[in-house]
Amino acid sequence: MTMDSSGTYSAITYAVAEGIATLCLNRPEARNGYTLAMAHELEHALSTADADPDVAVVVLSCVGRDFSVGADLSGGGFDAIMPASPAGDWQEPAGRCSKTIFGLNKPVIAALRGVSVGGGITITLSCDFRLAAHDSRFSFPFSRRGIFPEGASVWYLPRLVGMSRATDWMLTGRLFDAQEALDAGLVTSLHPPEDVLEAAYSLARDIIANTSAVSTAVIKQMLNHLSGLNSPLPVHALDSKLIAGLPGHGDAVEGVTSFLEKRPPRFPLQVPQDLPPWLPWLEAGQTP
Amino acid sequence: MTMDSSGTYSAITYAVAEGIATLCLNRPEARNGYTLAMAHELEHALSTADADPDVAVVVLSCVGRDFSVGADLSGGGFDAIMPASPAGDWQEPAGRCSKTIFGLNKPVIAALRGVSVGGGITITLSCDFRLAAHDSRFSFPFSRRGIFPEGASVWYLPRLVGMSRATDWMLTGRLFDAQEALDAGLVTSLHPPEDVLEAAYSLARDIIANTSAVSTAVIKQMLNHLSGLNSPLPVHALDSKLIAGLPGHGDAVEGVTSFLEKRPPRFPLQVPQDLPPWLPWLEAGQTP
Amino acid sequence: MTMDSSGTYSAITYAVAEGIATLCLNRPEARNGYTLAMAHELEHALSTADADPDVAVVVLSCVGRDFSVGADLSGGGFDAIMPASPAGDWQEPAGRCSKTIFGLNKPVIAALRGVSVGGGITITLSCDFRLAAHDSRFSFPFSRRGIFPEGASVWYLPRLVGMSRATDWMLTGRLFDAQEALDAGLVTSLHPPEDVLEAAYSLARDIIANTSAVSTAVIKQMLNHLSGLNSPLPVHALDSKLIAGLPGHGDAVEGVTSFLEKRPPRFPLQVPQDLPPWLPWLEAGQTP
Repeated sequence: MTMDSSGTYSAITYAVAEGIATLCLNRPEARNGYTLAMAHELEHALSTADADPDVAVVVLSCVGRDFSVGADLSGGGFDAIMPASPAGDWQEPAGRCSKTIFGLNKPVIAALRGVSVGGGITITLSCDFRLAAHDSRFSFPFSRRGIFPEGASVWYLPRLVGMSRATDWMLTGRLFDAQEALDAGLVTSLHPPEDVLEAAYSLARDIIANTSAVSTAVIKQMLNHLSGLNSPLPVHALDSKLIAGLPGHGDAVEGVTSFLEKRPPRFPLQVPQDLPPWLPWLEAGQTP
Repeated sequence: MTMDSSGTYSAITYAVAEGIATLCLNRPEARNGYTLAMAHELEHALSTADADPDVAVVVLSCVGRDFSVGADLSGGGFDAIMPASPAGDWQEPAGRCSKTIFGLNKPVIAALRGVSVGGGITITLSCDFRLAAHDSRFSFPFSRRGIFPEGASVWYLPRLVGMSRATDWMLTGRLFDAQEALDAGLVTSLHPPEDVLEAAYSLARDIIANTSAVSTAVIKQMLNHLSGLNSPLPVHALDSKLIAGLPGHGDAVEGVTSFLEKRPPRFPLQVPQDLPPWLPWLEAGQTP
Repeated sequence: MTMDSSGTYSAITYAVAEGIATLCLNRPEARNGYTLAMAHELEHALSTADADPDVAVVVLSCVGRDFSVGADLSGGGFDAIMPASPAGDWQEPAGRCSKTIFGLNKPVIAALRGVSVGGGITITLSCDFRLAAHDSRFSFPFSRRGIFPEGASVWYLPRLVGMSRATDWMLTGRLFDAQEALDAGLVTSLHPPEDVLEAAYSLARDIIANTSAVSTAVIKQMLNHLSGLNSPLPVHALDSKLIAGLPGHGDAVEGVTSFLEKRPPRFPLQVPQDLPPWLPWLEAGQTP
């Protein structure tokens, strides 16, 4: 942990306002080249946001014109992202970020602009939303550097864009633009560079104003943990159990009542304390 | 079962003509709000159609301008879809419909118009085709009601539209239009509202005139049960076994002969009696 | 094996130049109808290319105007593709080709033109790239012939184009054109018929000039073997192990150095001898 005694970070910025935690990569002098310090701070800040009752949504963005050029290779090797002799259970640091986001109970929105390359895009593949500026450029350049895709990106990418495009991008390592990313489904909307962060905030505010935190946490985890099963039958069993608990469930009562009364909802329940305690993925690493 | 003594249903309509069973949600006064009675009747009618040798294709549509607004919440709670104290193995009723369609041996075509929201769209996610009217609007509003997605929809939806769009729709609960549904792959074609049912019939007639009922039943089940495996090897083993049985297989002989003679086929075999009896999913709930 | 004593094939052509092995279906008089001899020769030629240190990329194309009309049914039955009494472990021959491509350590690019139907398209579904001519037409006509999809195509197709389109194409068996194939993601680019082979070569040359053979082999296998798992966690464990080995890894050192020196890379390592020997799929049929 590189947080100084005043509680601030060095490689990222962290701020909370109006229910939104904003995490920005903050090494603009290195085009936000990814480092071990950045990984540590992202993990810490994401966990802080997840535990903070004042945070409902997380926005991941950047200081400077580029989201991230990926692993900082400026030293000519991998010193910035790994020790000289990694232990057998060493976890590659971009994947530590994507894994933390995967397990988060709160929606995470990435607001991308400029270059998002290598680890600079793989850390966002487990985000729930990726919004991009028109000037965005992306690549998965691993084959061009003689290296390998990190952060379980070979798992996430085909689920986002299909196997044809994932293979194309991963094998050629070519640069592609914002429109191609939108057409393929890597990002869900494009915005002027100066507006992409505000677009992320607008989406975050919509989620905060209109949705139940318990519902979004559970839905996100259902999508993450259940969509890869080979059969819908255990999924139906699980969602039936969730729905059987709705009578008397505070957010469901308020959701239906506010809908019938045509007024905005005020959901009473909170995350994580009001999540159904029996959800199988609440035990770390468990899937049904 | 709410079928009256004359064999008709109350919450749906059911009619068979020219090899097509048409099931229509029939509570137009409630914009086809989903109820337990509707679930019972849909399950019964779908099973009836599957067993009826005069039915080759099922079309699922609606009476009135909207396919369905989802669970009928007009009572202010969940009474319309669940008992006061659901048993431990209680099955949520929209999922009972989607599960029955998933297991059907006959192609199911949904013809959607107006609003298809919540259970009003999740019951169609296991249909083989979803056709939609230009005036269609959709949403997965669970997060906005403080509830949870039913019918294994977190499993079906990413397979239909990819993970980015599925997450977007499921977390925001926002309303989206027919064009967005087409672009994402939720529906495969758009039609004027007055033509969507006829478009479904046209597709059904094409399937009936040109395809083998045994082939479509097996192909549908192969897609449903095999596409989620982690390896193509057991799939190749299974399809090799199916193909090894083709010499002497009546439909294959007729298919090849009619093709070479450039005439329409008249396939002799019937479903379910002529399905290969060893298919692993014929034992309920089994996948290889 | 039908290779004659001069080492040439009868049902395909095979040539190696500039690091590219070109395999062409070569029964233009039968519109490249698929036969057992073709399957034998494709398997042999693909394995030869994989083992040849002078081959970095494989291009799969055709002699004549059509890639392939699928199984040669001109005899009125299945004699061209199967024995009279297939053994219990008989492997359907189109799937033998797609399975060999799936396991190849080198990228495979299909260059399609004219008709690619049945086995004529399923043998390409495990290729890493499918490029198509504007005059391409495709179908999965199994339901129209009373037969079943081979080559694990029910597994590959939904991963390439999503479940809605895969089901549509597989159940109706209808013919569709190049633009529909592009829009759905079945192919990644369209070209004039006279240019599609050159487009494949251009892509092959880009891969050869700019990427590490070890990286492309590993990335291809990671996508094939890991993307269908139900969780990203074992994928992150595996890619961490790969990345932990990068210091001192010849291609990674050259990749980073050439990138920093802004010059083309000259990767020293070779496939298969320099692949990490512990990769789980190197044991036949194993997935983690």
